[in-house]
Amino acid sequence: MNFTQELNWIRRHMPRTARMVSQLGDCRGKKVTICTHLDIKMVPLYEGFLKQGGELFVTTCNPTTVRDEVVSYLSSLGAKTHAWLNMSQADWEQSLQQALDWQPDYVCEFGAEIMSRLQQRPGQTMKAGLEGTGSGVSRLKQANMTFPVFNWDDLDAKEGLHNRHMVGLTAWQAFFERTRMTLHEKNVVVIGYGLVGQGVAFSARAYGGAVTVAERDPARRLMAQYDGWHVSELDDAIAQADVVVTATGARNVITARHLRALKSGAFVMNVGHVSDEIDTSELDLTQGEEVLPHIYEYQQGNKHFFLLANGAMFNLTASFGDSVNAFDVTLAIMASGLAHIMGEGANADPGFYLLPDAVWKPAVSAITLDTPASQ
Amino acid sequence: MNFTQELNWIRRHMPRTARMVSQLGDCRGKKVTICTHLDIKMVPLYEGFLKQGGELFVTTCNPTTVRDEVVSYLSSLGAKTHAWLNMSQADWEQSLQQALDWQPDYVCEFGAEIMSRLQQRPGQTMKAGLEGTGSGVSRLKQANMTFPVFNWDDLDAKEGLHNRHMVGLTAWQAFFERTRMTLHEKNVVVIGYGLVGQGVAFSARAYGGAVTVAERDPARRLMAQYDGWHVSELDDAIAQADVVVTATGARNVITARHLRALKSGAFVMNVGHVSDEIDTSELDLTQGEEVLPHIYEYQQGNKHFFLLANGAMFNLTASFGDSVNAFDVTLAIMASGLAHIMGEGANADPGFYLLPDAVWKPAVSAITLDTPASQ
Amino acid sequence: MNFTQELNWIRRHMPRTARMVSQLGDCRGKKVTICTHLDIKMVPLYEGFLKQGGELFVTTCNPTTVRDEVVSYLSSLGAKTHAWLNMSQADWEQSLQQALDWQPDYVCEFGAEIMSRLQQRPGQTMKAGLEGTGSGVSRLKQANMTFPVFNWDDLDAKEGLHNRHMVGLTAWQAFFERTRMTLHEKNVVVIGYGLVGQGVAFSARAYGGAVTVAERDPARRLMAQYDGWHVSELDDAIAQADVVVTATGARNVITARHLRALKSGAFVMNVGHVSDEIDTSELDLTQGEEVLPHIYEYQQGNKHFFLLANGAMFNLTASFGDSVNAFDVTLAIMASGLAHIMGEGANADPGFYLLPDAVWKPAVSAITLDTPASQ
Amino acid sequence: MNFTQELNWIRRHMPRTARMVSQLGDCRGKKVTICTHLDIKMVPLYEGFLKQGGELFVTTCNPTTVRDEVVSYLSSLGAKTHAWLNMSQADWEQSLQQALDWQPDYVCEFGAEIMSRLQQRPGQTMKAGLEGTGSGVSRLKQANMTFPVFNWDDLDAKEGLHNRHMVGLTAWQAFFERTRMTLHEKNVVVIGYGLVGQGVAFSARAYGGAVTVAERDPARRLMAQYDGWHVSELDDAIAQADVVVTATGARNVITARHLRALKSGAFVMNVGHVSDEIDTSELDLTQGEEVLPHIYEYQQGNKHFFLLANGAMFNLTASFGDSVNAFDVTLAIMASGLAHIMGEGANADPGFYLLPDAVWKPAVSAITLDTPASQ
Repeated sequence: MNFTQELNWIRRHMPRTARMVSQLGDCRGKKVTICTHLDIKMVPLYEGFLKQGGELFVTTCNPTTVRDEVVSYLSSLGAKTHAWLNMSQADWEQSLQQALDWQPDYVCEFGAEIMSRLQQRPGQTMKAGLEGTGSGVSRLKQANMTFPVFNWDDLDAKEGLHNRHMVGLTAWQAFFERTRMTLHEKNVVVIGYGLVGQGVAFSARAYGGAVTVAERDPARRLMAQYDGWHVSELDDAIAQADVVVTATGARNVITARHLRALKSGAFVMNVGHVSDEIDTSELDLTQGEEVLPHIYEYQQGNKHFFLLANGAMFNLTASFGDSVNAFDVTLAIMASGLAHIMGEGANADPGFYLLPDAVWKPAVSAITLDTPASQ
Repeated sequence: MNFTQELNWIRRHMPRTARMVSQLGDCRGKKVTICTHLDIKMVPLYEGFLKQGGELFVTTCNPTTVRDEVVSYLSSLGAKTHAWLNMSQADWEQSLQQALDWQPDYVCEFGAEIMSRLQQRPGQTMKAGLEGTGSGVSRLKQANMTFPVFNWDDLDAKEGLHNRHMVGLTAWQAFFERTRMTLHEKNVVVIGYGLVGQGVAFSARAYGGAVTVAERDPARRLMAQYDGWHVSELDDAIAQADVVVTATGARNVITARHLRALKSGAFVMNVGHVSDEIDTSELDLTQGEEVLPHIYEYQQGNKHFFLLANGAMFNLTASFGDSVNAFDVTLAIMASGLAHIMGEGANADPGFYLLPDAVWKPAVSAITLDTPASQ
Repeated sequence: MNFTQELNWIRRHMPRTARMVSQLGDCRGKKVTICTHLDIKMVPLYEGFLKQGGELFVTTCNPTTVRDEVVSYLSSLGAKTHAWLNMSQADWEQSLQQALDWQPDYVCEFGAEIMSRLQQRPGQTMKAGLEGTGSGVSRLKQANMTFPVFNWDDLDAKEGLHNRHMVGLTAWQAFFERTRMTLHEKNVVVIGYGLVGQGVAFSARAYGGAVTVAERDPARRLMAQYDGWHVSELDDAIAQADVVVTATGARNVITARHLRALKSGAFVMNVGHVSDEIDTSELDLTQGEEVLPHIYEYQQGNKHFFLLANGAMFNLTASFGDSVNAFDVTLAIMASGLAHIMGEGANADPGFYLLPDAVWKPAVSAITLDTPASQ
Repeated sequence: MNFTQELNWIRRHMPRTARMVSQLGDCRGKKVTICTHLDIKMVPLYEGFLKQGGELFVTTCNPTTVRDEVVSYLSSLGAKTHAWLNMSQADWEQSLQQALDWQPDYVCEFGAEIMSRLQQRPGQTMKAGLEGTGSGVSRLKQANMTFPVFNWDDLDAKEGLHNRHMVGLTAWQAFFERTRMTLHEKNVVVIGYGLVGQGVAFSARAYGGAVTVAERDPARRLMAQYDGWHVSELDDAIAQADVVVTATGARNVITARHLRALKSGAFVMNVGHVSDEIDTSELDLTQGEEVLPHIYEYQQGNKHFFLLANGAMFNLTASFGDSVNAFDVTLAIMASGLAHIMGEGANADPGFYLLPDAVWKPAVSAITLDTPASQ
C-alpha cells in the first residue's frame, strides 16, 4: 500500500477530524509549531491547517517514530520541516531550537519539549500551547508558565478511548499477527489494572486467554476482582503463566527473578507506558535470537522464553497503532484544541488548564459516517 | 401473590403457548393423560386443551413438585385428577394405574412412567405418546413400542434453552436471594462443562465470580479452555474454591474427601441432573444447621462449609424455575407435540421418533410480544 | 429469617469491617452521632464501636429506610436513639436537633443533615465529620466549615463498587424475582451511561437482554459505543423497547410523551439517583393496578404498560440492596473514616477533604475470607 | 519470515500433533495418499509419517491453496508429489488419477476427490480412508463404499473449534489488518447464526462492534436472542449496517437488492462456507477499484461500498487461517485418524463411520505446553 493510497483511505475515514478542520476557518497569519509523532494519521489535521493558509513548523517529539514521507508531504504543502527518522540526538536538539527561533505564536506538543525549553528563552512571544501527553503535563505542572497551556491528555474521551480500548486490542492483534498464536489454553497474566491493563485483560479474553490480574494497589486489585478476574500475587502467578504482559507505567515490574521463574516457552510482552517495565539488565540483549520478526528467544539453562520486541512497547513496535476510526476522535479533539488556542484560549491568563468541555465535546459528537466531509 | 393473580400474569406472558393452543382446535373426543410436573406454568396448555373440549387425566411425574392449586384448578375445569403434593409412593403408583385404566388415547410425559407400564398391559389402545425428558427417552429406547412416541427432549430449542440459559441463571439468582452474597472476590469452581455447566460458568461471571472449570472429558475440557475459562483438576481447584457447583449429571462427583479439602466458609451447590452429585453419605444430614433457609452449615474440625439445599438441586429447590418467557417457548413446543400426536403423528408406524422440525419450528417462531393472544 | 439469624450471617460475612472495627481500639470517651440509613448491614460497625466503649447517638438520614429492629438492638447496647420507620417530618426534625443538643464530638452522615444545621448553632464544639453521599458533599461544599469534614463518597472504591457493580445487578435480580421474567428476546433501553447505566447495561446482557443505550452527553455516548452497545436517540429507541430503565440522576427523563410512545406491555423502571426520573405527573398513580407486588399496570387507550414500584427507585424498593460482601467493603471504608476523624483527622484545619488514600486503602486490602474476624 | 524459520516455529508449537505422530510408530510399508490443503501447518504430520518410514503420495484438494515450498519439502523427504499452486484443471485431474494408479492402501482427504473416483475403478485395493470435510462426507454418504471410511469432520472438537473459535476471530483480525479500522461505532450485521455466525458475532463485540444478527431459521434466531443479540430481518438491518458479514453456507444470501440498500461507505464481507454467499452477478467485478489490498470499492450512483476480497471468503483470502495452536488440535485428531485407518480401523466392515471417541480423545487431551515433543 503506497503513501497516497494510504493517506486517501485515512482521510476518507476521519470525518470528525475533517469537520473540526473545516471549523478552523481561515488560518492565514497563524504560526504553529508542532512537536508530535509524525505518523500518517496526523496528516489530516496538518494538511488542513496548511491548506487553509496556516504556517507550520514541523518537528517531532520522538525521532524513532518519524515517517519521512509525512515530512516530505507536509513540506510539499509549504511547511517548514526539520525532522527525519532516527535523527541524532544533536540533530533533534537543533530541530527543537530551530522551532523556537522560528518564533511561533502557538505550539502543539506531545511531551512539552518546546514549552519546557521556552522557559530558558527570555523575550519569547508564545501566545498559547496545547499538550497531549501525561509526561508533558507533569513536566509543565512544575514550570512557571508565562502563557496559557491547555491539557487534553486527561480528558476521558482521549485517555479512556486510547488506553482502555486501543492498547490491549492492538497488542493482541500484533501478538496474533507476529506469532500466529491465539491465547486459547494459555494463562495470561496481566500486570497492572489501570485503563491499559483493563483493556489488555478484556481483549485477551476475546483471543481465548484465561486471564489472571496481578496488581499491588488494593483498590485497583479489588476493581479487578469486581470485574470478575482471577487475581493473584505476581510471584504466584508467574510460574503458571504462558503469556505475561506488563501494563503498569512503572519500571522494572518484571525482574530477572521473575524471568527465571517462567515456564519454558512463555511469552513476555510490555504494553505499558514506559519502555523499561521489564528489567532486561541481566539479559544480554544481543544474545536473543530473533526467531520470528519482533520475537526474541532467550535460553535460561534448559528453559527458554520469548521476549516480544526485546521488551520495548510491543503495541507500538509491532502494530500500526490506534485504528483510523479511533484516532479520528483523538485528532478531532486535538483539532478543537488547536482552534481554541488560536482563538479564545489565547486570552486566558498564563497558567495550566484542562481543555474545556465546550471546546472538545462538539469534536466527539456523532457524525453521519456515510458522508465523509473530505469527499 | 395469589394463585389467580399469578396465573393471570403467566397466561398473559406466554403468547407462543397461546398461539399453539389455539391451533389445537376442537379437542372434543380426545382423551389425554398427562404425567408431568404440575407447576402453575404448565396450566396455559392444559386449561386450553380442556376449554377446547378435550378430556384430561392428570397425574404427576414427581409427587414432590405438585402444586395442589394447579390440580384443583384443572379439576374445576373438568379434568380427572389423582395427584397431590408429597403423595405416598403407593398413592402415586395407584395414580399411574388409574391413568391407564382410564384408557387414554394419548399420553404426555416427563419420565415415561405411564408408557413403560403400558408394556405390561395387554390390550391397550394407546394411539401415540410424547416424552420430554432424557431419562424417559432412555427408558423408552430400551422398550418395544407398540405405538409411535415422539421425543422432544433432544431438540436444541428445548435442551439448549433450558440447560444453557436457565439453570445457571436461576441458580445464581437463588444463591443471591438466599445468601445475600454476590460472587465478587470469590473463586467459583464449576464441575462439568456440558450445557448446564456452560450456563453456570457464564452466569457466575455476571455475578462477579472468578470461574474455574473442572471437567474430565478432554474434548469438553478443551471447549472450556477455548471459551477462555481457567481449567483445573478438581483436586487442585477445590482447595481454592469459595463456591463449588456440580453440573455433571453423574453421581458422587464431590466426595467426602473433597468436602474435607474445602476452605472454611466455602459454599457447595448442586445444579446438575441428579440429586446425588454430592456424596453426603459421610455427613449426618440431620446435623447440618439451617443457618438461613436452604443454607445448611456443617462443621469439620475447626472448619465449616455451607451445603445449599443439603445437596439437592438448588435451582429447583430454592428458585421458581425457568422464567415465564423462557418456559413459554418450552410449553409451546410441547403444545405442538400434543397437536402432532393427536393428528398426523398417530399415523406413524410404532416406534420412537424425534419430533419433526415442521411440527415444532412454528411454535418457536417469533411472536409480537405486545399482543398476547390470551387477552 | 429472623433478625438474630440475619445479623449473625451478616456479621460473619463482613470480615473487612470486622478488621477495621477492631482497629478502632478503645472508643471510651468518644461521642459520635450517626445520621445514616439504619439498615441491618450497618450494624457491624455501630455495635463494634459501642462494644469498644464508644457513645452513640442514632438518628437517620431517611425515615423511610429505618429498620426498627436495628434501632432497638443498638439501644440495647447503650446507644441513645431517636428514629423509627416512617417517623413524621416533625419527629425527624426533632431527632436531628436532639442529636445536636447531645453535643457530639464527631458525626457520620449520609446527606449532611446534621452538619448543615450546625452552621446555625453558635458555640458548637464538633471536632470532625464524615460524609458519604454526593448530595451531602454538594451541600457542604457551599457551607463554611468550622471543623474538618472528610468526604468518602467520591472514592472510586465506594462509588465504583456500588454504582457500577451493585445497582444494575440488584435491579435485574429484583426484576426477575418480581416479574419472573428474564430479558431474553427483549429490547432493553438504558437511559444514561454513567457508572450506574454501565452496570445496568452489562447486567442486562447477563439476563439475556438486547441492550440499547440512550445518552445525551456526546463523550458518554461515545463511551457506550466503544463498549460495543447499540446507541440510539431516546425517541427512536422508546418505540421498540420492551423494558426501559432510567439511570441518569436527572429529573423527568421519561415524560408523558415517552410513555405514550411505548409498545403495549412494556416495563418502565427507575434505578437512578433521584426518585422522579420518570415524570408521572400526567398519570393518576392511584389508578395503577398492582398486578403483582411492586408491578403497577397502567392502561393507555388500547395499550398498557407496567411501571415498576410506581416510578420509585426499584433497586431500593424491591430488592435488599447491596450484597453483604460488597457492602463489607463500603462499611470498612466508613469505619476507616470514623477512625480517622476520631484520630489524626480531627487535627486538620477546618475545611473539606477527600478521605486520604493512606486511611481507606488498608480497609479495602485483601482479607482471607475463610477466617472471619468476628468468629 | 522464511520457510525454514516458519516451519521450525510451527513444529515447536504443535505438541499434540508431535505426540500423535510419535504414536504412529513404525510406518514402513504403509502407502498413504493425501489429498488435502498443502499448507505449511500440515507439514508436522506428513514429515513425521515420512521420517518414520511411510510412503506418501501428495496431491491436493484445492489447487489454489497449494504452497509450493511445502510440496518441495515433502518431496525432499521422499514423498511422491504431483501438485503445484494454481495447477490447471487437467493437471489436477491427472494428479488425482496418478494418486490412484499409485495404488495406495490408505487415503486421507478433504473433499473425497480420490474416494469418489475409486468407485469407477474395478480392482482397487484400498484398505481404509479418512475424510475431514462436510462436503466430502455428503459425497461419500451417497456412494457405496467397498472399504471402511472414517469421518472426523463432524466431531465437535473439530467443527466446534474451527467454526466457532477460529473463523470469526481470524476474519476480524484480517479486517483490522487490511482496513486499519476497528468496529467501534459500527453496526455489524451478521447473517447466519450457526457456529460460524456465533463466532463472528462474539468476536465482533470484542472489536467494538454493535452486532445485529439476521437469521431465517426460527430456532437459531431464538438462540441468537437467548445469547442477547439484537435480531432483525435482513431487509430492516441492511440499511443501518456499517459492516455486513455472511456466515450461512448458502448461496446468494446478499443480493443486488441488498447491495443497493446499503449506506454509502459500508463494508461487505463473506466468511461463510461457500464463495458465492454474496451474489455479485449484477456487479462488474472488473470495475471494482482495489483501494487497499483485498478491499474493492464499488460506486452505486452517489454511494459506494467496499466488497472485501471481492466476495470470496475473506478469512481464507486475507488472513493466515487458524492459529498454530488451534490447528495443532485439528492436526492431532487427523493424526489419530491416520493411525486408526492404518491399524484397527482397516478391519471394520465396508461403510461409513464417525471416528470413534477412543481414537481421537487421547489426541485432544491436555499436554504440558512447555515441553514440545519435537525439541
